[in-house]
Amino acid sequence: MSDAPAAGNGSTRQYGNVSRETLKSVSGLELLKGMLDGRYPGPPIAELMDFGMAELAPGRAVFTGRPGRKHYNPSGSVHGGFAATLLDSAMGCAVHTLVPQGQGFTTLEIKVNYVRPMFEATGEVRCEAAVINMGRTVATADGKIVDGKGRLIAHGTTTCMIFDIP
Amino acid sequence: MSDAPAAGNGSTRQYGNVSRETLKSVSGLELLKGMLDGRYPGPPIAELMDFGMAELAPGRAVFTGRPGRKHYNPSGSVHGGFAATLLDSAMGCAVHTLVPQGQGFTTLEIKVNYVRPMFEATGEVRCEAAVINMGRTVATADGKIVDGKGRLIAHGTTTCMIFDIP
Amino acid sequence: MSDAPAAGNGSTRQYGNVSRETLKSVSGLELLKGMLDGRYPGPPIAELMDFGMAELAPGRAVFTGRPGRKHYNPSGSVHGGFAATLLDSAMGCAVHTLVPQGQGFTTLEIKVNYVRPMFEATGEVRCEAAVINMGRTVATADGKIVDGKGRLIAHGTTTCMIFDIP
Amino acid sequence: MSDAPAAGNGSTRQYGNVSRETLKSVSGLELLKGMLDGRYPGPPIAELMDFGMAELAPGRAVFTGRPGRKHYNPSGSVHGGFAATLLDSAMGCAVHTLVPQGQGFTTLEIKVNYVRPMFEATGEVRCEAAVINMGRTVATADGKIVDGKGRLIAHGTTTCMIFDIP
Repeated sequence: MSDAPAAGNGSTRQYGNVSRETLKSVSGLELLKGMLDGRYPGPPIAELMDFGMAELAPGRAVFTGRPGRKHYNPSGSVHGGFAATLLDSAMGCAVHTLVPQGQGFTTLEIKVNYVRPMFEATGEVRCEAAVINMGRTVATADGKIVDGKGRLIAHGTTTCMIFDIP
Repeated sequence: MSDAPAAGNGSTRQYGNVSRETLKSVSGLELLKGMLDGRYPGPPIAELMDFGMAELAPGRAVFTGRPGRKHYNPSGSVHGGFAATLLDSAMGCAVHTLVPQGQGFTTLEIKVNYVRPMFEATGEVRCEAAVINMGRTVATADGKIVDGKGRLIAHGTTTCMIFDIP
Repeated sequence: MSDAPAAGNGSTRQYGNVSRETLKSVSGLELLKGMLDGRYPGPPIAELMDFGMAELAPGRAVFTGRPGRKHYNPSGSVHGGFAATLLDSAMGCAVHTLVPQGQGFTTLEIKVNYVRPMFEATGEVRCEAAVINMGRTVATADGKIVDGKGRLIAHGTTTCMIFDIP
Repeated sequence: MSDAPAAGNGSTRQYGNVSRETLKSVSGLELLKGMLDGRYPGPPIAELMDFGMAELAPGRAVFTGRPGRKHYNPSGSVHGGFAATLLDSAMGCAVHTLVPQGQGFTTLEIKVNYVRPMFEATGEVRCEAAVINMGRTVATADGKIVDGKGRLIAHGTTTCMIFDIP
C-alpha cells in the first residue's frame, strides 16, 4: 500500500491514511512534517471539521481551524466537540513530534476547559500545544485555543502512551 | 425568528438552531424532547458528525453515532474528537434535562478517557450519560460509549454551570 | 527485610511500609486483604490523614475517613487535599485488587470534583471506588465520597498504569 | 471573633482559621499577603502536611513542601495526596490573588498528573501555580511541582468558581 502524494496547498489538499510501512519507517516529526509539506495525505477528520496543521517544532504543534455554522450546537454557538477535536489533534501532535522511529502513541485521556464561546463570526482560531513531560512510556502535553485577537477560547491537557509499533 | 418544523425521521431530519424565545419558554427536558420528536431542528454538528439523540429521561440522555472513514485520524482509526463530541453532547444533555425553564447551561470542562479504538467496522456506538450531581449553579455528569457488543470504548465526565437566560 | 506484624484493631494499628519481597510475592488483592486484616502494616499517610480501608472486593474498594480541624484550609472548611487523598487511595486500591502477582501499578492522573464542603461536624465519610476498565497496561476507575446521610461530597476518576515489578 | 496574631517565622508559625469579618474586609491578595507575613494564621492543613506559601504575586502563587515518611503510601513512596494537596493549595491561591474584596472562591475540580515519585530523600519541593483565565464567575489555573534540581514531579489544573461572600 503506498501513500498518495498530496499537494500542500489548501485548495488541492489530499486526505486519507498513511500506510503502516510509512508509520514504522519514519520518526513522528518526519511523519508530521511530511503531512505539513503535502507529501503525505492529511487526516479525513481535518477535512470534515475544517482544521489543519500550521506549524511544527520538536515538542510543539500549532493547528488552525475555522468554526462555522456546521459546527453549531442547538443554542447557536459552536459545539464543544470542535475545540476538543482541535486540542486533541494539536496536543497529540506535539507529543508525536518527540516519538522516535519505530514507536507510536495513543491518547489515554484529554481534558478541555471552555472559556469563551465560538461563533462563525469568530473567524480562524489558532490552537497551540506543547509537551509538558516526555517519558519513555507516558507523555503529557497542554494546549490552548485563541482567536485572532489573542483571546483565550479553550485550554486543555492530555496524557498519551508511547508504544512500539507492532 | 421561528423554529422550522422538522421531521423526526432520520432521512428527512432537519438541522438548524432553536430561537432564543423557544429556549427561554421551555424547560430543558421539553426542549430536548422537542428535538427528539422532530418539533425542533437538530443541531448542525449532529449532521456533520453523524450522531443523534436516541433516548431521554430526567437526568439521563443516550446518543447514538456511527463512526466512519471521514472521522479518521492519520493512523487509520477514528479521531478522539468523535468520542469527545458524543460524550460532550450526551453528558451536556443529561444535565440539560434537569435545567428548569428560564435557565440554560454551559459546559465548563470535559474529561475523556479512551479505552478502545473505533473503526468504520465498529458500527453504531451508543453513548449513555447521567447526572452525578445537580446543584443550583453547578452540575456534574458522566458518560460512556459502548459498541454493539457492549464493549467500553471511552468514558468521561463534565462540569457544567447553570445560569439564568438573559 | 520483613514486614512487622500489625494489629487490625484501629487502636493498635501499625503503620509502615511493605517489603519489596512481599509486594512481588502476592497479588494486589492478597496484599490489600493482608493490610485490612492487619497482617501487613497500613500506610503512614492513612495515620497522618485519619483514614483507612474498610471493604475490599475484586475491582472495588471502600475507605472511611474522619475530617477534622487539622485538615482545615484558611476559610474554615476541610482542604480539598483530604478528599483528593481519600479518592486517590480508594480508586488506586480498586485497581490494585485486579493487579496480578508480579505486577504493580502507578497512578498517572486523578481528577476530583468537589460538590459539598466537609467540616469537623460532618463526621465519618465513606469513599467508594470501582474499576471502570482493566486493560493489560492501563486501568481506569472512579469513586465518590458520601457523608453519613448519603449526601455526595466529592467524586473523581483516575488513570493508572500496570507494570511488571522489576 | 478575632484572628490570632501569628509569627511569619516557621518555627513559631501559628495555624488556625481566619474570621469571616476578615475574609469579607480584604481582597484575596491582601488576605494571602497577611498569611505570608504572619499577620493571619496559616491553615491547619499546612502544618499537618508540612508545606507553606513561599511567594505571591497577582495571578501567581508559589508553595514549598517537604515530603517525608509520614506521607508514604504502602509501597514506599509519597502518596499522591501530597502532590494533590500542594497543587490544590497553590492553584487555588493563584486564583485567590485576583479575587476582589467581598468575594470568595471555591474549587470546582482539580486534575493532577503524576510524572515522578517523591521520597523523603527528594527534599524540599516547589509548587508554582498561575491563573490561566480569570472570569467574573469562573477561573482556571495550572501548576507544577519541581524538585530542587528543577525536575518535574507533577502538574495539574483547576477550575474555580468566584462568588459574593454572603
